[in-house]
Amino acid sequence: MARPLILVCNDDGIHAPGIKALIEAVEHLGELVIVAPDRPQSGMGHAVTIGEPLRINEKTGLFGKHKAYETTGTPVDCVKLAVDRILQRKPDLLVSGINHGANSSVNVIYSGTMSAAVEGAIEGIPSVGFSLCDFAYDADFTLAAKVAQQVAQLILQNGLMPGTLLNVNIPKIAAADFKGIKVCRQASAKWSENFEERTDPHHKKYYWMVGEFQLLENSTDTDEWALANNFASMVPVQFDLTAHHAIPYLNNWNFEQAG
Amino acid sequence: MARPLILVCNDDGIHAPGIKALIEAVEHLGELVIVAPDRPQSGMGHAVTIGEPLRINEKTGLFGKHKAYETTGTPVDCVKLAVDRILQRKPDLLVSGINHGANSSVNVIYSGTMSAAVEGAIEGIPSVGFSLCDFAYDADFTLAAKVAQQVAQLILQNGLMPGTLLNVNIPKIAAADFKGIKVCRQASAKWSENFEERTDPHHKKYYWMVGEFQLLENSTDTDEWALANNFASMVPVQFDLTAHHAIPYLNNWNFEQAG
Repeated sequence: MARPLILVCNDDGIHAPGIKALIEAVEHLGELVIVAPDRPQSGMGHAVTIGEPLRINEKTGLFGKHKAYETTGTPVDCVKLAVDRILQRKPDLLVSGINHGANSSVNVIYSGTMSAAVEGAIEGIPSVGFSLCDFAYDADFTLAAKVAQQVAQLILQNGLMPGTLLNVNIPKIAAADFKGIKVCRQASAKWSENFEERTDPHHKKYYWMVGEFQLLENSTDTDEWALANNFASMVPVQFDLTAHHAIPYLNNWNFEQAG
Repeated sequence: MARPLILVCNDDGIHAPGIKALIEAVEHLGELVIVAPDRPQSGMGHAVTIGEPLRINEKTGLFGKHKAYETTGTPVDCVKLAVDRILQRKPDLLVSGINHGANSSVNVIYSGTMSAAVEGAIEGIPSVGFSLCDFAYDADFTLAAKVAQQVAQLILQNGLMPGTLLNVNIPKIAAADFKGIKVCRQASAKWSENFEERTDPHHKKYYWMVGEFQLLENSTDTDEWALANNFASMVPVQFDLTAHHAIPYLNNWNFEQAG
């Protein structure tokens, strides 16, 4: 039997320390191919490149013996290019990250790291995104890499439910304080923006986005609770966005009367 | 009582015919403020601008008496700027579109139009995105505008369930053939990419994304079925991406054994 084919992506770019940590964490589990953006793409969400062409550059030797490619596209473009152009067969696993910074709670929606994993899942590939709750370039990925290795192995052994992927976040704590992996749901939260106004040398105003994370609940079954209590959070994510519970409510509307 | 405050956004840019059609459809329902990107932003998904500042330009007179602003940001940035900087109070309704092209099925994930509506819902604003299944710049928005007016009115009258928004798509058909609005779920589908390879004058390869939409089911309760059968589709959408049904499965994994 062929060794599992593992596609490695991220959104911080192919030169980010986080992707190197992820490669080292999973390289003994299969044959790796790395396809990642040529520059940081944080906050790109599920953006795709429609209006301009894309380029692919092979980065021989960047990660030792592993095949590696940088692209000019978004994280989602990278997955599409990998599946359609670069890989000879469908990967057995897609791992994305390790992101520099949390993608827990509502951040799953803004995250390029998670969007790469969502795209993998849409393609039918068992997919997972890993994020460390530390934005620093020189963050310590030791614990995150250990968790990534464990989760990647569990997915290869057990598989994932159809139409689902995993969002795994790792707290910024010492390994000694780590309590293990906790399966959770996405916490209810939002970013409260405060755009900082400045004036340019031509007397025109411009704005910097400065968000503040607002947790809107305190339940113990959420990813935010897990992370605050020294667990790594594992949230199963789906790309069927239908709010099925709202369908009966809408069917009660009187579509004849309005308009 | 104050007239409802209605925030109008899109992803095709403030100069697209679709947003003009939407403004004309809902202007009798309340006080309108338009905040839209200064250029087309299709396929931006839920991208936000983190690494550079944003600008806001008031476009006095562009839409008659209505206050209108273009921004240098993504559709999601526009909603954030509107809520934090431009508007004096929280809108009673956010309408996004009318998009030039379908956002049914899995397209909800890639769509800037829908991401603006998702962001509105995260902010607690009753929100809806409208899309016409016609990519043409000079598409006929008559039917779509009528549906948009009806749905906007229904939302203002009835409200939406917490944590949900609406994805409304309108088929490209003659008004006489229209069968009404159908509440649906998101159809299972994917884009099958085929990157077209070309060679530039410097002998380097580049790739154009050419996707083909693949519907993966034929159920009659989906948005794709509704659109193919002359209905406008209305899908309730949620931004809690948790696959709740997968939590028991993951809790059966042996987290001790692996690693």
